Amino acid sequence: MHIAAATEINRKFIPSLKQLHDSLHSKSVEFKDIIKIGRTHTQDATPLTLGQEFSGFTTQVKYGIDRIAGTLPRIYQLAQGGTAVGTGLNTKRGFDVKIAAAVAEETNLPFVTAENKFEALAAHDAFVEASGALNTISASLMKIANDIRLLGSGPRCGLGELILPENEPGSSIMRIILSQGKVNPTQCEALTMVCAQVIGNHVAITVGGSNGHFELNVYKPLIASALLRSVRLLGDASSSFEKNCVRGIKANHQRISKLLHESLMLVTSLNPKIGYDKAAAVAKKAHKEGTTLKESALNLGVLTEQEFHELVVPEKMIGPQIDVKVIKFSLLGSTDLVIQAPFCA
Amino acid sequence: MHIAAATEINRKFIPSLKQLHDSLHSKSVEFKDIIKIGRTHTQDATPLTLGQEFSGFTTQVKYGIDRIAGTLPRIYQLAQGGTAVGTGLNTKRGFDVKIAAAVAEETNLPFVTAENKFEALAAHDAFVEASGALNTISASLMKIANDIRLLGSGPRCGLGELILPENEPGSSIMRIILSQGKVNPTQCEALTMVCAQVIGNHVAITVGGSNGHFELNVYKPLIASALLRSVRLLGDASSSFEKNCVRGIKANHQRISKLLHESLMLVTSLNPKIGYDKAAAVAKKAHKEGTTLKESALNLGVLTEQEFHELVVPEKMIGPQIDVKVIKFSLLGSTDLVIQAPFCA
Amino acid sequence: MHIAAATEINRKFIPSLKQLHDSLHSKSVEFKDIIKIGRTHTQDATPLTLGQEFSGFTTQVKYGIDRIAGTLPRIYQLAQGGTAVGTGLNTKRGFDVKIAAAVAEETNLPFVTAENKFEALAAHDAFVEASGALNTISASLMKIANDIRLLGSGPRCGLGELILPENEPGSSIMRIILSQGKVNPTQCEALTMVCAQVIGNHVAITVGGSNGHFELNVYKPLIASALLRSVRLLGDASSSFEKNCVRGIKANHQRISKLLHESLMLVTSLNPKIGYDKAAAVAKKAHKEGTTLKESALNLGVLTEQEFHELVVPEKMIGPQIDVKVIKFSLLGSTDLVIQAPFCA
Amino acid sequence: MHIAAATEINRKFIPSLKQLHDSLHSKSVEFKDIIKIGRTHTQDATPLTLGQEFSGFTTQVKYGIDRIAGTLPRIYQLAQGGTAVGTGLNTKRGFDVKIAAAVAEETNLPFVTAENKFEALAAHDAFVEASGALNTISASLMKIANDIRLLGSGPRCGLGELILPENEPGSSIMRIILSQGKVNPTQCEALTMVCAQVIGNHVAITVGGSNGHFELNVYKPLIASALLRSVRLLGDASSSFEKNCVRGIKANHQRISKLLHESLMLVTSLNPKIGYDKAAAVAKKAHKEGTTLKESALNLGVLTEQEFHELVVPEKMIGPQIDVKVIKFSLLGSTDLVIQAPFCA
Repeated sequence: MHIAAATEINRKFIPSLKQLHDSLHSKSVEFKDIIKIGRTHTQDATPLTLGQEFSGFTTQVKYGIDRIAGTLPRIYQLAQGGTAVGTGLNTKRGFDVKIAAAVAEETNLPFVTAENKFEALAAHDAFVEASGALNTISASLMKIANDIRLLGSGPRCGLGELILPENEPGSSIMRIILSQGKVNPTQCEALTMVCAQVIGNHVAITVGGSNGHFELNVYKPLIASALLRSVRLLGDASSSFEKNCVRGIKANHQRISKLLHESLMLVTSLNPKIGYDKAAAVAKKAHKEGTTLKESALNLGVLTEQEFHELVVPEKMIGPQIDVKVIKFSLLGSTDLVIQAPFCA
Repeated sequence: MHIAAATEINRKFIPSLKQLHDSLHSKSVEFKDIIKIGRTHTQDATPLTLGQEFSGFTTQVKYGIDRIAGTLPRIYQLAQGGTAVGTGLNTKRGFDVKIAAAVAEETNLPFVTAENKFEALAAHDAFVEASGALNTISASLMKIANDIRLLGSGPRCGLGELILPENEPGSSIMRIILSQGKVNPTQCEALTMVCAQVIGNHVAITVGGSNGHFELNVYKPLIASALLRSVRLLGDASSSFEKNCVRGIKANHQRISKLLHESLMLVTSLNPKIGYDKAAAVAKKAHKEGTTLKESALNLGVLTEQEFHELVVPEKMIGPQIDVKVIKFSLLGSTDLVIQAPFCA
Repeated sequence: MHIAAATEINRKFIPSLKQLHDSLHSKSVEFKDIIKIGRTHTQDATPLTLGQEFSGFTTQVKYGIDRIAGTLPRIYQLAQGGTAVGTGLNTKRGFDVKIAAAVAEETNLPFVTAENKFEALAAHDAFVEASGALNTISASLMKIANDIRLLGSGPRCGLGELILPENEPGSSIMRIILSQGKVNPTQCEALTMVCAQVIGNHVAITVGGSNGHFELNVYKPLIASALLRSVRLLGDASSSFEKNCVRGIKANHQRISKLLHESLMLVTSLNPKIGYDKAAAVAKKAHKEGTTLKESALNLGVLTEQEFHELVVPEKMIGPQIDVKVIKFSLLGSTDLVIQAPFCA
Repeated sequence: MHIAAATEINRKFIPSLKQLHDSLHSKSVEFKDIIKIGRTHTQDATPLTLGQEFSGFTTQVKYGIDRIAGTLPRIYQLAQGGTAVGTGLNTKRGFDVKIAAAVAEETNLPFVTAENKFEALAAHDAFVEASGALNTISASLMKIANDIRLLGSGPRCGLGELILPENEPGSSIMRIILSQGKVNPTQCEALTMVCAQVIGNHVAITVGGSNGHFELNVYKPLIASALLRSVRLLGDASSSFEKNCVRGIKANHQRISKLLHESLMLVTSLNPKIGYDKAAAVAKKAHKEGTTLKESALNLGVLTEQEFHELVVPEKMIGPQIDVKVIKFSLLGSTDLVIQAPFCA
């Protein structure tokens, strides 16, 4: 089962994740200049770029590859040559090393004989561990797929920031009528279902791994089949998700821009110019009357339209900024402040 | 542990769920006339009332109460009198019945002596079962809390159909500025975290329950403490969620109405009058140009404004309707059609 | 999916459990006079009959049937007629009731239309609940199968109290040599592996059930397939376990008797005659020297062989006993006294 | 939460595991010459040394340390400096790097700023991963503790190969009588209960990790508290298990030897001398009559007592053997040949 698992993970699973990683990375580059509202606690927050959001997904998948790869050294350990109880009774000395070398040569993967055959037969911890990596990857992919389907929700009554590719075009007239702009996120659904099953299989494998007795863990068939199914399911679903969803995701520029500018989160930009009290008044009025910050500010007469546009620049809100006041202070020599803003020069 | 669990479930947990049920039910009545867009696959769907949506939540909690109550008969079975291995060695005949009666009297709960003491000592299936009910209730509450926080997302860039009560008013000016209309759904967050822990405790209890050996399941301390913690956590979180969230939820009428009327899902109402082809054209044009159905229909000249308002009546879309044409046909005698519309009279 | 699940559970799963129940019950009757050592904390304890031990298993399975049957009322609720979001838009009034009646007639199972269609579409709690029953049953069966394989461990170096039927007779001479009396408990292994997978599938179903959004829980395919697989796996494995293992289990009378009489647990029987101190001395000497209680007692000269046999009667240790003194008292007075004051000496 | 987790894991958890590892290793050395019966499928198998058995446990714990250590690189990544959504808005450039450096200096652990702040805030995959390592370690420890309690089962009616240290000496006379040689494996029980809870917490953490929305995973409090509790529980239980159980385990030499020599598994040693048919006859007769192999062989007259003792040497069965023919060849030629060419006819 070690040979099957290592082969499957190397030949299919990791390549699928890499492809997904590359595709998400391409999107993060493609979307790098699209500024959108951020959301924390499912509430409007300060802005970020859509590219930054996708860079988070990309990093999750990148680490996922590291995670599964990190379990391979113990998967590469073969029990062969331990015979029934790990002693190697009825084998020749060195048989274990030779068979591992033969497998390594055949598969072109770095199989070695298990350091301790008793562990290798009595436990299947290497599989519990590998399943744990799949479990973490499932948590990552479930998060990513959930975000994408919620960001792509709509067409009119959802968030609508993403346009997901249509994979199942309807044919009946009725369907065409109904489906104007409505694209069910079937790939997200498929992937999250697979993630749920992999999370469940992980529990099955853990139960099996924890329950063997004495010199042989007899839950081997369960553990092997559940792990191989998890690997296959998650690899295939990642692959399909990449091909049929991620690759074709488009940003809904108009919607993203509309939401960003309707948001009240940009009010913080007004503080330096008009002070907290007036900024608060602008935000309150906008919230109360359902208007934009700009409309509110102009109505209150605290700013001109030009001033507003000079101040409210989302582009300045997507990374750390150098505080001008602090620069001045640091030039005056306060060590403390220099330390607080050490790169301002 | 049976006494502690039964007491806790009866005295605190079920009352908390009942309170939550009643509160959700009140909301479903309060919101019964608010028609809103439905969402399936996170995509816009045909409308329903907000009251109907909450009636689904209400029913989930109602069944949750049935579920936990359904596990009590086996929790009420006491092993006392079985002594070490279930034989009752060193007790007097009838001791088991009498002690159960005494416990029943003291607690005012229908405790009885276990039908089979060997089962009662060697297994803790009754607790695995009760934990299973808590697990189902957690799945229900997680769904409800997720829906509520997403429906309450915003204030500007989310769905915004619900206004959740503010529980943690900020004090600093900066916070006031930032939080205009922004209410973190902290109660939903607390409840869903508790649900996750209860789902996890359920696995712990299952592992413990499946692992005992011979005449005594020695995982009793784990099982009892995990179950009692789950009961307490879920009861308290339900109670707090009811009191600090559900009770104070308000509908954002304006937003709900706006989303409903911007939706393209109402197009189906046009079919009877203008036919599929024209209805499809109206929907396509609206989708393409980002306009409402009404604007599109008027622009295409297929309907007058008055005709549009006569046809598009969301109130008619929230339940099964009697098709007028079919009634007429059925009166003419076509058996097939009568069968298709059998209750039309 | 409700129809498939209810049919499968009624037609195959419950009958399989009933067969297993009956078979375990037959064994508990067959073994009712075989007194054996009890084990708590995996340590020797006071005796019970092998029949009593099997009656515990029987009761576990009996309750398992109650548990799964108890979930059926909510499985029998059909969402059909709710159409997309639960409103029943585009159906005729009463369509839901009629279709449920038609399904009920066709399947001969008490299907009804769901009390609340919004709940029935937006949640799959009924399946999470049914899966919870399967989870409890898995915990029961894992306990039973573990006990049986440990009681059947041997042939020489295990507990050896049960003789499990041989299902996979070897053919090679080598195998025959090796397998003298060695019967791998393959049915126990298969059943416990299935239990582990069902416990895992339960987590998958719970994750799916807790994650749906809004008017439709889209994890339906995962939930349905995982539940149906669990039902099928657990039913088939129970059936095979009954047929190929339980039915053919024999008691190893000689071994059971040997262990029972070598045990030091019978020492408690000596107290009434020789007092605690001497009884303790007998037990200590036997433990220290690795002899039986009888040998120790005779060596210490505290009892004659005849006295020993009169006192040490395991048959008297397998249930509650009426204290002789109390019987006398009861003859003098009220029956209540006997029942109410068992320690009255 | 990263700081707390990394500190706890480094300062307490890994040292506890290392102590357990060292103690198990000492035992594997102490027991290296004690040959015992092996058990596969809970059935008697070919022999191994008790030291080899413990070396398997030792290796499991060694890999456990590697597993948790392997998750630290991602725990060491700090989100600090990302502020609300990961952009670092309102921080100074470089603040993230400096704060991580400060934390690293303070804790003397290699903390760094997260490579991608969006991932670090929106996901808690690093914690799901670390919890996965704890889950694998729990599976390992549950296996080890189960084996130890079963090997220590008895005193008369269990396997009885290990003598576990007594930790809770009874005081009452009754207890002393009853507990002659009976040592409840309380440390094994405590450890396996903790393992079950850690496996459950892992599911809770996975559910939390998979469920966050958008720029911030709000399940952070659940995830942090469950992980920290798992780390603490598992570390403390490992520590206590090492100190109060493993350290004091003694081999029951007499019992181990008795079981080994009563076993029929040694029959394979007779093949070279008397052939398969006669060896099979010896084993069959012994099994049928409940005698030892030696008695059976002498009765059948196929071997003298001296011949039997020359052939049946368990010491030769605990490792791979050099085929006699090969030995001859090796005498003719190179030593390498023996080692490298085990299949040479």
